[in-house]
Amino acid sequence: MMKIALLLSGCGVYDGSEIHEATLTLYFLAQAGAQAVPIAPHIPQAETIDHLTGKITEEQRNVLVESARISRGEIKDISEVTGADIDGLIIPGGLGAGKNLSSFAQAGENCTINEEVKSLIRDMVRRRKPVGAMCIAPVLVAKALQGMDEVTPTLTIGNDPTTAKKLEKLGAIHVTARVDEAIIDNANRIVTTPAYMIGLGIQEVAKGIENLVKGVMELIEK
Amino acid sequence: MMKIALLLSGCGVYDGSEIHEATLTLYFLAQAGAQAVPIAPHIPQAETIDHLTGKITEEQRNVLVESARISRGEIKDISEVTGADIDGLIIPGGLGAGKNLSSFAQAGENCTINEEVKSLIRDMVRRRKPVGAMCIAPVLVAKALQGMDEVTPTLTIGNDPTTAKKLEKLGAIHVTARVDEAIIDNANRIVTTPAYMIGLGIQEVAKGIENLVKGVMELIEK
Repeated sequence: MMKIALLLSGCGVYDGSEIHEATLTLYFLAQAGAQAVPIAPHIPQAETIDHLTGKITEEQRNVLVESARISRGEIKDISEVTGADIDGLIIPGGLGAGKNLSSFAQAGENCTINEEVKSLIRDMVRRRKPVGAMCIAPVLVAKALQGMDEVTPTLTIGNDPTTAKKLEKLGAIHVTARVDEAIIDNANRIVTTPAYMIGLGIQEVAKGIENLVKGVMELIEK
Repeated sequence: MMKIALLLSGCGVYDGSEIHEATLTLYFLAQAGAQAVPIAPHIPQAETIDHLTGKITEEQRNVLVESARISRGEIKDISEVTGADIDGLIIPGGLGAGKNLSSFAQAGENCTINEEVKSLIRDMVRRRKPVGAMCIAPVLVAKALQGMDEVTPTLTIGNDPTTAKKLEKLGAIHVTARVDEAIIDNANRIVTTPAYMIGLGIQEVAKGIENLVKGVMELIEK
């Protein structure tokens, strides 16, 4: 049974992982006969957003603890996992990718990235094991691989020219994509889909995620 | 487009709505061409559970605010919705159903139920509009309908005899069911499926939820 790590960044689109994207990834991985390995860093969230009002609250939450809500308590600290333990890695979107796992949401192409996230992504690419990323999470892949010898990832975040330009400043090649498409970078074994960057509803988003999971599983078999 | 309310109880299996059950319901509703209307009561959570350790924390969270994480911010206070506004109602499980929407988790057959939840369920049954409930949420249906003239709901929570007996003490008829089955009470227009009461993984649970959504949609058309 192939083991695919699901890298979470909290629980909720505005300060963590996008819940539909994470759950649908678990669903399509199970359908593909793969075992999901939920992981997250044990770090404080950058902020907590009241999802009813959209406003920042004063609450202090932890990325690993909140991520555990999505995985029903079954989750590992990312520090316990290397590329040797898993066959693939998939990163759902949600603003947690740009607030907790990196500072992309505030700093754009001048962002920093969590060192454990960077190490794991680089480790996967070095081992020629596939990495999938959806929604805004492809920025993590671009930032992690920035400056890595002979690696120029081809990615999509949909069709937003401003975000695409920031990705290119991080050293990636951006291609536009439809919500139901998964873009496959065969050279670097990276699969990306726009998901809620452009998706108008859960059904649209699901098609792209199903194709992303399929792409990751096919790259493992190659 | 049929409007189906999704009654949430927070965000996370141990103190709110079970996230996979809620998300998969949204997914299958979208596939069926229905419009989901997420709703929740604006009340404090009974407790907050750290989903990593399983322990109670000192945090105070709100059911409506946390439920909004599952629905990407689009949610209504249950007090704004009556049976006249919707064509069907579906209630995912998670311990929030037995802690926040009722006191079933602590008090069993002696539980109380949130008055707004009780009113909405009764209103739906009176209007002959379908109600779906999964996992532990059928206890809400049993408690809401307890003592209602000429209504004896037939429900399932899977195959746990202790919980089944409590449901029967609330006046319901319990039938055992497999995880992929949805039990349809045609007389009262109630559809139930065990979901994570017995499901071992997201793929199993998804089959029952798909059948539950199908059952609710077919009852609307009848």
